[in-house]
Amino acid sequence: MMPTITTFEQSPDRGRGMARDMPVRWALEEVDCPYRVRFVSFHAMKEAPHRALHPFGQIPTFEEGGLVLFESGAIVWHIAERHEGLLPRDEAARARAVAWMFAAVSTLEPSIVEREIATYLERDESWYEQRLPAVEGRIRSRLADLSDRLAEADWLDGGFSAGDLLMIQVLRRLGGSGLLGAFPNLSAYVARGEARPAFRRAYDAQRADYLRNAAAGQAARQ
Amino acid sequence: MMPTITTFEQSPDRGRGMARDMPVRWALEEVDCPYRVRFVSFHAMKEAPHRALHPFGQIPTFEEGGLVLFESGAIVWHIAERHEGLLPRDEAARARAVAWMFAAVSTLEPSIVEREIATYLERDESWYEQRLPAVEGRIRSRLADLSDRLAEADWLDGGFSAGDLLMIQVLRRLGGSGLLGAFPNLSAYVARGEARPAFRRAYDAQRADYLRNAAAGQAARQ
Repeated sequence: MMPTITTFEQSPDRGRGMARDMPVRWALEEVDCPYRVRFVSFHAMKEAPHRALHPFGQIPTFEEGGLVLFESGAIVWHIAERHEGLLPRDEAARARAVAWMFAAVSTLEPSIVEREIATYLERDESWYEQRLPAVEGRIRSRLADLSDRLAEADWLDGGFSAGDLLMIQVLRRLGGSGLLGAFPNLSAYVARGEARPAFRRAYDAQRADYLRNAAAGQAARQ
Repeated sequence: MMPTITTFEQSPDRGRGMARDMPVRWALEEVDCPYRVRFVSFHAMKEAPHRALHPFGQIPTFEEGGLVLFESGAIVWHIAERHEGLLPRDEAARARAVAWMFAAVSTLEPSIVEREIATYLERDESWYEQRLPAVEGRIRSRLADLSDRLAEADWLDGGFSAGDLLMIQVLRRLGGSGLLGAFPNLSAYVARGEARPAFRRAYDAQRADYLRNAAAGQAARQ
């Protein structure tokens, strides 16, 4: 049964693969699972029909038969449970990969999102410049720890796993901040993820969707 | 094999069960799994031996035979995988419970931690009072969505699960903020979790540990 995911009709990242459908598309590509995409407008996202799928009125959602899921981390976990290739079979190695999945979305990502909130919502506030160094300091401290742990390895714990997939996607959100540049092994780690054929296919698909929807929106306005 | 968890030698919450060992203790109690506790000082937490267990120099860690885990969400997931009672057997229901686990630590908790950071680190800044309403507005918006979804149910999706355990633990961090009071069904949900015998045992254990360590520290200083 082919799953359907939802994503932004008009992604605020303009097709740069930063939205949270990206890790889900990437995971589906890694396991060679075809999927359908349904686009949701910012308005429809907050209405009852979409909220029945996603209690927080966000994207992505994942529908497969009678199953409805939200939370990109959980969707990636579900895909990894159902298919070979994203979580090791060995029970201990599997648990460690899940630890990296949680680390990505609950230890690294919140500090990165804190900076995005500051940049998008507080840029015109009097305190913005004064507060930013502390916000970036919290990100740097996490990155330094992650860089120490990764060291010279290709991936966080043995072979590529769903933990790497989520971590690399979270680190990609730092693009343009200049913060990753101080950690060459992390920059190389992100590049290694982005070079995977499944990442490229997922990236190209979301970009093509963005461009198609943008063109359709423009045509409709003319 | 009895697992060993680490926690604060002197918990900054003064034994109120807010630290991240609490959900792990609670999960272990729910499945009737005895465990050992090793205490770690703030200094030792950042040194190489502890960092070998926890890359970010935090608590808790979980050791069981040769397995070492970090991230409270992942430790709770591992406990739930290994024992009956915290995740439904049905594959779809299991995936939905995991979605609530991720929602707790990556959708709810970051907004709550953002408020804690403001309160602890920015209280003396000139912008503190001006910025707080926006921070609390982000929490309220998540709580309103969660309250709508929970409605009159006892738990988030059928029977009590690891998703409820993590969500209730995250909501407990709002204690004293007054933010939960506007959502009576969420307050009742937290109280329902806190009334579980396994929660009480976990709470009492961490509190006894805190008091014993505090007394020992005082005796050592005299």
